[in-house]
Amino acid sequence: MSLIVQKFGGTSVGDIGRIELVAKKVAACRAEGDDVVVVVSAMSGETNRLMALAHEIQERPLPRELDVLLSTGEQVTTALLSMALNQQGVKAKSYTGSQVRILTDNAHTKARIREIDSDRLIEDLKEGYVIVVAGFQGVDGNGNITTLGRGGSDTTAVALAAALKADECQIYTDVDGVYTTDPRVVDGARRLSKITFEEMLEMASMGSKVLQIRAVEFAGKYNVPLRVLHSFKDGPGTLISMEDNSAMETPTIAGIAFNRDEAKLTIEGAPDVPGVAYQILGPIGEANIEVDVIVQNISHENTVDFTFTVGRGDLARAEEVLNQIANEINAGKVTSDSKIAKVSVVGVGMRSHAGVASQMFAALGEVGINILMITTSEIKISVIVEEKFLELAVRALHSSFGLEKEPKDENVREEE
Amino acid sequence: MSLIVQKFGGTSVGDIGRIELVAKKVAACRAEGDDVVVVVSAMSGETNRLMALAHEIQERPLPRELDVLLSTGEQVTTALLSMALNQQGVKAKSYTGSQVRILTDNAHTKARIREIDSDRLIEDLKEGYVIVVAGFQGVDGNGNITTLGRGGSDTTAVALAAALKADECQIYTDVDGVYTTDPRVVDGARRLSKITFEEMLEMASMGSKVLQIRAVEFAGKYNVPLRVLHSFKDGPGTLISMEDNSAMETPTIAGIAFNRDEAKLTIEGAPDVPGVAYQILGPIGEANIEVDVIVQNISHENTVDFTFTVGRGDLARAEEVLNQIANEINAGKVTSDSKIAKVSVVGVGMRSHAGVASQMFAALGEVGINILMITTSEIKISVIVEEKFLELAVRALHSSFGLEKEPKDENVREEE
Repeated sequence: MSLIVQKFGGTSVGDIGRIELVAKKVAACRAEGDDVVVVVSAMSGETNRLMALAHEIQERPLPRELDVLLSTGEQVTTALLSMALNQQGVKAKSYTGSQVRILTDNAHTKARIREIDSDRLIEDLKEGYVIVVAGFQGVDGNGNITTLGRGGSDTTAVALAAALKADECQIYTDVDGVYTTDPRVVDGARRLSKITFEEMLEMASMGSKVLQIRAVEFAGKYNVPLRVLHSFKDGPGTLISMEDNSAMETPTIAGIAFNRDEAKLTIEGAPDVPGVAYQILGPIGEANIEVDVIVQNISHENTVDFTFTVGRGDLARAEEVLNQIANEINAGKVTSDSKIAKVSVVGVGMRSHAGVASQMFAALGEVGINILMITTSEIKISVIVEEKFLELAVRALHSSFGLEKEPKDENVREEE
Repeated sequence: MSLIVQKFGGTSVGDIGRIELVAKKVAACRAEGDDVVVVVSAMSGETNRLMALAHEIQERPLPRELDVLLSTGEQVTTALLSMALNQQGVKAKSYTGSQVRILTDNAHTKARIREIDSDRLIEDLKEGYVIVVAGFQGVDGNGNITTLGRGGSDTTAVALAAALKADECQIYTDVDGVYTTDPRVVDGARRLSKITFEEMLEMASMGSKVLQIRAVEFAGKYNVPLRVLHSFKDGPGTLISMEDNSAMETPTIAGIAFNRDEAKLTIEGAPDVPGVAYQILGPIGEANIEVDVIVQNISHENTVDFTFTVGRGDLARAEEVLNQIANEINAGKVTSDSKIAKVSVVGVGMRSHAGVASQMFAALGEVGINILMITTSEIKISVIVEEKFLELAVRALHSSFGLEKEPKDENVREEE
């Protein structure tokens, strides 16, 4: 008998018919003898409906009251799902974030979970109840209702799984798992049966928006096995967990991630003195612009060229700041390019496998793609290319690393 | 500086425009230097919308979950009203029943208030906040959300006023006060500026559905001055309070109440032995049928006739039970009449004024109305008449007791 936490998002509980389907899914899990805690979001459209009411009154609604308002959305779903479970003969009890109690800080609309008091839930589980918890919400130390911000229901599910020491946290979505890359770009994209937390973070942060990054970080920190599944289709989904050292061989590359939302800025001829990087990037950070890839070329006649990428929406602002800096530090001209994209190969296996970088560069070279920038980390290598080459690059890499084929050892692990 | 509890029902907060009008009303009260606690219902239509969702799933929804579901309706209103107050420059904070904490028993969907912890509210009032509390809801000893049943928001307001020792509990409705009788029946019906709790109970229980009986009882028990006012029209409304013994003279009669929902049953020739009343009315009570007026005529040849009234909806069932009883106790035939109505004169003044009964009977006799049954209590006299005479009876009594004229001493009291 296992303890499973299952999370269903807004579209999965979008109407009564779907809530009844979810109840069936939960009942099936319960029938197999597992203890189940379900975390639900507001019915799709409900949060927007409530938000619109608030905006009729205030342009910027009071954060404390916005939390009181929005938290009702999830509460409604918990009651309806509990009724649907009851109707199918399954004992169920709903809980708000306050009732559980999911203690958060007092940062209304974007609170962070501090602690979960699981005593009452454990008691109910012992009595055979399925617990249905309102996602996305908690309560601060003074009893005020808080919310975790959009997508916070994933975090609620992972935090509950950690507090209850659940065997698995299942996130039900509208995709049947995590793929080697975007199936809309590569026909042969394949569902991964396993991926590590680190890989998932790298994949997620670059556009595979299956899971909230925050929830993955949380799961990794507390070592909660996460599984991504389709709400209404059967299938094993993708298990996200710690690196499995017992496996004979780890596949080198898990997937190919990419991101179109990149723009590149270059400041030429900056003086090659200690602290120049900070002089350039400090004001960019102060302007709340996030910088992604940074490259500094080698010194030439005591000056350096300095290139970095930002989100496209920040390009104009970044350029303004950079022109001012160029003036101040007596550098050369500032140039920019928004027609670029980033392509990354991700995989914990590359830690122990030499040659991933050279295989990557070779594959891109073979199809005639010029690499504009390169950056590497422990488990990923990213390149910046012209945007028009993005799909070609992803396909070339997917094929070069053989991702369309199921890795042999991964199959073995799944059948265990 | 006074502490005022104000309660606004569903139609008063039916849309954002109305919520903003309510905020204006509250802000005006605050501007006069009063501390204000506002109790709100769900926006009109919301409770029915949620109920319909529940009924899509279950014919008889789980009571615990129904409470979780329905309580969101009031919570939404509290958040929106707090925002509207904030928008008008008034500091405000919303509270759910659980947050206050309004402790109830665990009778889901019809819980009763046991205790209110007002410490937190008092602290917020001291800091200058207007408190907006969700009506109709509470929390049981185990932290489960409960609701007080339909109309429970009035009870929430009165209970809060009692706990906070408020100077007045104002119930805002769609009428501008309590009238001497139904203005649809008598043109000269007049708004009362004052009425006692006892009189209000007698008026309310007989069809003047301005206030929930339960809330009036509660207010009387804890001596909370209640005022009925119109949500969107200015005016002093009607104050419901303890009998004012300091007044030189109390008006004899406060108003004329009536009720069409009456039917009468007679069992003839029941044996005149001790216990026969119980033999007849016991089984009626066991069948969950409420009995109103009861009359037993004097013994005649060792038998009595026994007549009582019930709600019209219960007539068929009562007749069935009564026929069985007649058989068992060897009584005569059972007859019934559903074309009757009850008319009552109500007033605490009749305690010290002889002659109210004779004036009543004379007034009815003058217009040729035959009295079928009579029953009296400390502060009311009721007669059962043929239904077709109802309006005529009410008008005759209203005029005979001079109710269209403002009583002199009542005016004085109002101007104090």
